[in-house]
Amino acid sequence: MQEKKVYVDYNATTPLKDEVKAAMIEDLVIYGNASSLHASGRAARERIEAARAAAGKLLGAAAAEIIFTSGGSESNNTVFQAMRHIINFKGKDDVPASAAGRNEIITTAIEHPCVLNSSLYMKDLNYKVTFLPVDEYGKIRLDELKKALNEKTLLVSIMTANNEIGTVQDIKEIASLVKAAGAYMHTDAVQAVGKIPVNAADLGVDYLTMSAHKIYGPKGVGALYVRKGAPLFPLIHGGHQEDGLRAGTYNNTGILGFGKAAELAIRDLAEYGRRTSALRTRLREGFLEKIPNIKINGHPVDTLPNTLNVSFPGAEGEAILLSMDIVGIEASTGSACASGSLDPSHVLMALGVGPELAHGSIRFSLGWNTTAEDIEYILDQVPPIIHRLRAMSSL
Amino acid sequence: MQEKKVYVDYNATTPLKDEVKAAMIEDLVIYGNASSLHASGRAARERIEAARAAAGKLLGAAAAEIIFTSGGSESNNTVFQAMRHIINFKGKDDVPASAAGRNEIITTAIEHPCVLNSSLYMKDLNYKVTFLPVDEYGKIRLDELKKALNEKTLLVSIMTANNEIGTVQDIKEIASLVKAAGAYMHTDAVQAVGKIPVNAADLGVDYLTMSAHKIYGPKGVGALYVRKGAPLFPLIHGGHQEDGLRAGTYNNTGILGFGKAAELAIRDLAEYGRRTSALRTRLREGFLEKIPNIKINGHPVDTLPNTLNVSFPGAEGEAILLSMDIVGIEASTGSACASGSLDPSHVLMALGVGPELAHGSIRFSLGWNTTAEDIEYILDQVPPIIHRLRAMSSL
Repeated sequence: MQEKKVYVDYNATTPLKDEVKAAMIEDLVIYGNASSLHASGRAARERIEAARAAAGKLLGAAAAEIIFTSGGSESNNTVFQAMRHIINFKGKDDVPASAAGRNEIITTAIEHPCVLNSSLYMKDLNYKVTFLPVDEYGKIRLDELKKALNEKTLLVSIMTANNEIGTVQDIKEIASLVKAAGAYMHTDAVQAVGKIPVNAADLGVDYLTMSAHKIYGPKGVGALYVRKGAPLFPLIHGGHQEDGLRAGTYNNTGILGFGKAAELAIRDLAEYGRRTSALRTRLREGFLEKIPNIKINGHPVDTLPNTLNVSFPGAEGEAILLSMDIVGIEASTGSACASGSLDPSHVLMALGVGPELAHGSIRFSLGWNTTAEDIEYILDQVPPIIHRLRAMSSL
Repeated sequence: MQEKKVYVDYNATTPLKDEVKAAMIEDLVIYGNASSLHASGRAARERIEAARAAAGKLLGAAAAEIIFTSGGSESNNTVFQAMRHIINFKGKDDVPASAAGRNEIITTAIEHPCVLNSSLYMKDLNYKVTFLPVDEYGKIRLDELKKALNEKTLLVSIMTANNEIGTVQDIKEIASLVKAAGAYMHTDAVQAVGKIPVNAADLGVDYLTMSAHKIYGPKGVGALYVRKGAPLFPLIHGGHQEDGLRAGTYNNTGILGFGKAAELAIRDLAEYGRRTSALRTRLREGFLEKIPNIKINGHPVDTLPNTLNVSFPGAEGEAILLSMDIVGIEASTGSACASGSLDPSHVLMALGVGPELAHGSIRFSLGWNTTAEDIEYILDQVPPIIHRLRAMSSL
């Protein structure tokens, strides 16, 4: 008997698409031999540059605006730590003359741990850091941002879409306020890229983070979009790679997989949105119909198409996960990167959900391989689990 | 007609060993699917921990002393930049009480660009940095080190073996001087690991850098050995990975390839040394016999078994490389990471070779796939190339 498996944790990580896997294996088998390294050094370089062009195209950016990194965390850290060297930025056309006097950073209370911890690190270094609150749907309030922006603001970092609840911010409007204030604008778009259209130039950001393994590409490789003319300082010093902005031998195979994943993300974007949002709607409606007294977290409209975060009052998140795991449903209580901690989700707390409800919340994140049958299976299995757990907890 | 190819640039990068390739493909094909990510999360974790144990074993270290990174450059940068936070190191048993007052770094003039540039970065931040000179064989002078060490010394970073000339330093003796002075000892062992025995505990270092793609493993993954009890501070802040010391989703496939490469490096070490040093001896003797007026750079005894750096006075390095490339011989003028620059090798200059001679120097670095026929082919092809170039230059 085949064990039933329904993976609905695509916001944590995605499987490789078959074409990505094939491209990587081809690189390992065909190109990954010594004789190709040298005379064919140019060819290897060309494959990397093609991947860079694909990653750029996915963001509506030029290839020259893409720096390859080891992943989203490194990309985010690079931007934050670069700000420490703002007065040393050289040869770039638009370092604000006043940048040296700026020492304030604005971010939000619902960022990914790597942005939150980068912010706290900067705070330890005596930067003033403001964590903007969000409304009950997870949207930042533009008036709060306006209040926080001032002539000392150096960097604003606000995620495009939230990993736990899927809420999408108005980055274009935010960026225009930030740029008008003379600060740099960064967005962690790791969860948004490949799920909704993300055009860096149109958004008007200076820096944008993306990661391959969230778009059906390999782990261990990511990118940082750096707007033409925007300054950067390396986090990793060394060789001449990436125009001196990121040292280290190229991760050829990973970068090729990333490029292929980017290419496919462009091709598949519309279909992805249609498919996941229809499935997500069915899942939400089914839950609302079958389970009384639940709460859907996140924004009703400005949201990723694939993400459904649900609070089940009276049931405990870890117990729900465990019960679902027994019947083969794999979801999450929140960010995989924050798991291992028993604290309630910082995102849900920021929404004002309250610790008890936050503890009973599950993120279902759908993906390319999710089927209508998967959704029906979840809708068959989860309601009795919640009823049982609620009955136990009320004993 | 099969084009002749003789790759002798293994110090730049190595091809994957077949078993490494097979392990990575298995990971991509068998494990790299969504259904394995969750219920089998523990299994994935176990594979990573097995790789960690193998990487540790290669260094005579405990698995818990190994942190995975994106490569040698990141490992080196992590150590240098961690030193900036020495006063914040917490919960470790051996932060010298005086560490906060220490602000001097000692390294050598012949380090890899990522250590040199990390040093220069620290210098920009007002650390005092001393670049120790080396003798004509590339060895540092212990009396110079003793002179430089003082109660303000925070970190000493000296490479185990040089990438361009192969010279191996007396790290054990160096580390004992450094530790006696109360400073931290780091060694970039990227070129040494897998070529000669490297036992971190025996060497007595606090930090040691290694890279997978120099030991027939994948690019984009490396490790940092951190001696049990030695303090560290993350370069990349974020999730809880690596005990909070290196955030970012694990590069599963790369790490598994690294583990397999480490396992094979242990198995193959003795055979590797025997094989490459016999071939290197034949190459050196052949050159000396067939080409008048050449100079072998590096130490005659304390050297990597696979590296032969030769100056051909009267011929120009780039011209030699080009001529060799035409007949399928792939070597290097120095560090690949420093190439693209027309400056003479900083390593050879530090040896006192002089700019003219340094410009006419070639590094032949042999490897696991190098054959006796390859060496004879080089000895057939290179002498007429040198004679021709010398004749042209004397016109």
